Amino acid sequence: MTNDHSGKALQLYSTVKKEGILEISLADVPIPEPQDDEVVVRVEASPINPSDLGLLFGPADMSTVQVSGTADHPVVTARIPPRLMQAVAGRVDQPMPVGNEGAGVVVKAGVSTLAQALMGKTVALFGGAMYAQFRAIKADQCLVLPDGTTPAEGASCFVNPLTVLGMVGTMRLEGHTALVHTAAASNLGQMLNNVCMQENIGLVNIVRRREHIDLLKALGARHVCNSSAETFMDELTAALVETGATLAFDAIGGGKQAGQILTCMEMAANKTAIGYSRYGSTIHKQVYIYGGLDRSPTEITRNFGMAWGIGGWLLTAFLRQIGPEAAQKLRERVAAEIKTTFASHYTRTVSLAEALQLDAISVYSKQATGEKYLMNPNQGVA
Amino acid sequence: MTNDHSGKALQLYSTVKKEGILEISLADVPIPEPQDDEVVVRVEASPINPSDLGLLFGPADMSTVQVSGTADHPVVTARIPPRLMQAVAGRVDQPMPVGNEGAGVVVKAGVSTLAQALMGKTVALFGGAMYAQFRAIKADQCLVLPDGTTPAEGASCFVNPLTVLGMVGTMRLEGHTALVHTAAASNLGQMLNNVCMQENIGLVNIVRRREHIDLLKALGARHVCNSSAETFMDELTAALVETGATLAFDAIGGGKQAGQILTCMEMAANKTAIGYSRYGSTIHKQVYIYGGLDRSPTEITRNFGMAWGIGGWLLTAFLRQIGPEAAQKLRERVAAEIKTTFASHYTRTVSLAEALQLDAISVYSKQATGEKYLMNPNQGVA
Repeated sequence: MTNDHSGKALQLYSTVKKEGILEISLADVPIPEPQDDEVVVRVEASPINPSDLGLLFGPADMSTVQVSGTADHPVVTARIPPRLMQAVAGRVDQPMPVGNEGAGVVVKAGVSTLAQALMGKTVALFGGAMYAQFRAIKADQCLVLPDGTTPAEGASCFVNPLTVLGMVGTMRLEGHTALVHTAAASNLGQMLNNVCMQENIGLVNIVRRREHIDLLKALGARHVCNSSAETFMDELTAALVETGATLAFDAIGGGKQAGQILTCMEMAANKTAIGYSRYGSTIHKQVYIYGGLDRSPTEITRNFGMAWGIGGWLLTAFLRQIGPEAAQKLRERVAAEIKTTFASHYTRTVSLAEALQLDAISVYSKQATGEKYLMNPNQGVA
Repeated sequence: MTNDHSGKALQLYSTVKKEGILEISLADVPIPEPQDDEVVVRVEASPINPSDLGLLFGPADMSTVQVSGTADHPVVTARIPPRLMQAVAGRVDQPMPVGNEGAGVVVKAGVSTLAQALMGKTVALFGGAMYAQFRAIKADQCLVLPDGTTPAEGASCFVNPLTVLGMVGTMRLEGHTALVHTAAASNLGQMLNNVCMQENIGLVNIVRRREHIDLLKALGARHVCNSSAETFMDELTAALVETGATLAFDAIGGGKQAGQILTCMEMAANKTAIGYSRYGSTIHKQVYIYGGLDRSPTEITRNFGMAWGIGGWLLTAFLRQIGPEAAQKLRERVAAEIKTTFASHYTRTVSLAEALQLDAISVYSKQATGEKYLMNPNQGVA
């Protein structure tokens, strides 16, 4: 391994500079040595998730992206609109490592029994700083993948699969019985569809393009509504009546759709209501925004009574809520079903340097369904 | 009593007609006879609350209000925009009685001991249909006012006082320690300020006009922010740092203010945070919308992390949550402090017929702070 010899390896950093510039670059950092209870993993696959893009590009204006530097060490810069600097005040001038999750092979191990037992294993990791050739991590934080699983297959064991299981868990904890999901043709949406089919949970999928209806129907989805259709509100209401869904998870955030879902939930509730209540139905209707595909303001026309809520939803908060034992059970389920229920699909695999080229950025930064990239920090390394 | 002789009394009704017209009129209805466990109250005071206006005028376009009929039996009509008919589909062509609360004197009583014990007493009532000369009600639903309390003084024992106590109760139930309140110079806002001062709870009052700052300061309020001031966001953030308030009750609903409060709460949280978290502070920030002074859409710029919620808040839901015993304790506290902590102020007292004249409607329908009307359905009746 070239970089082993030099003792240096590449690590990606994103920095918000106080002048209002975002800079992404590759640093040459020492290959870490493991502590007694740690292992060092050669990261061979790490997805570019929407949640990574938030840290990677921050609130930068993507129309101002420029690439300079060299082929091996490209430097990406972009301007941050002054009014958005407030939101990132806490990270100014601090180089931030990026990459929530990944998978790779354990190449060094500390002296502890647990660490030693992992030597040579393919493991999945969560915890940031995965856009790097090597990552030191506590041995007990590694999720060992079943034999015959490649790092690429195991790269997305945490963010999407646990989010899906978290949605279903939140549904049960808060007394709902069925779900609505937006941007539903995504990798995450397909996993949610798989889990809901397995567990016989009513799921209303909302997509934005005609072809995504067919994609989800082919996967067995029963309710798919196209938000671009003129009949959207009627179709959504009918699906809500049929499923009884009063909880939605929304990946989009901005615009009118979160409010429209509440409006349709209220119409569905009133179809079975007796008499008029000036405060609307008493059934609590909830939308959790877990993503921000549309960064524009959320616009809510309040025509759905008083029993409603919209709020943020974060996987880490859910995992804290259920506690470490329950969380570990979810992880083990994901590992066991990583090639089936929780399989991910990528358009292209890129190296760290390739990920910082304009052609790649212009594709994966769109977060378009069906155009997800996988990073292999060791791609092209002998 | 004139109407006793005829056996008829006036009762106000609001009707949404399927043609898209709202009609408010006074009907001559029989004076009720009490059941064994009921009393009949001569209603002498009933406030015109924002929550009454919702039922009274529904979604009518107030610029189209016309008055016809006679001086004794005026008929108010207004057009309802077609797109808003959906929201009132459940009440079409059903005359709805109006008036959430009021007070008056018990003039007839059923044979039960409890009912008989109330004869001649001044009582406060809740339960709708108070815009009427007489109201039959279960004896155990009457809140007996302390000796020396007039119906006008006891007219607003429920909606505002219990909402205030509900806000403080919700704050405690959900683990917050201080409050934000909008439209804070209102009758309700003044009561909330009284209760927070009594109980040493941090309260950030948000008002929309310069003169309301002085009004609240004169009542002892410590934090008053004017949303019309250019320095609003900075002042609000400073008050949030000082009080630690992470829960707001918003009477306005529409526009940007609910979101601005969350933005300032997040800025306040980050002033004491250590290090940068890409998902914002982990402190849950909540805005409950309990009114709709601004019916326009709620516009939320999501720049406050993921630990946030906005939702509807309804007094009846809170009372259900705490149970009947706890609710009764709150009512008794209100009765005991109705001339002090929970005193209300009205600009003018009108009869039922006067309330349906254009000059009156144009004032009270604005829901402007300091321009609240009291209805006396028996005013001018011998």
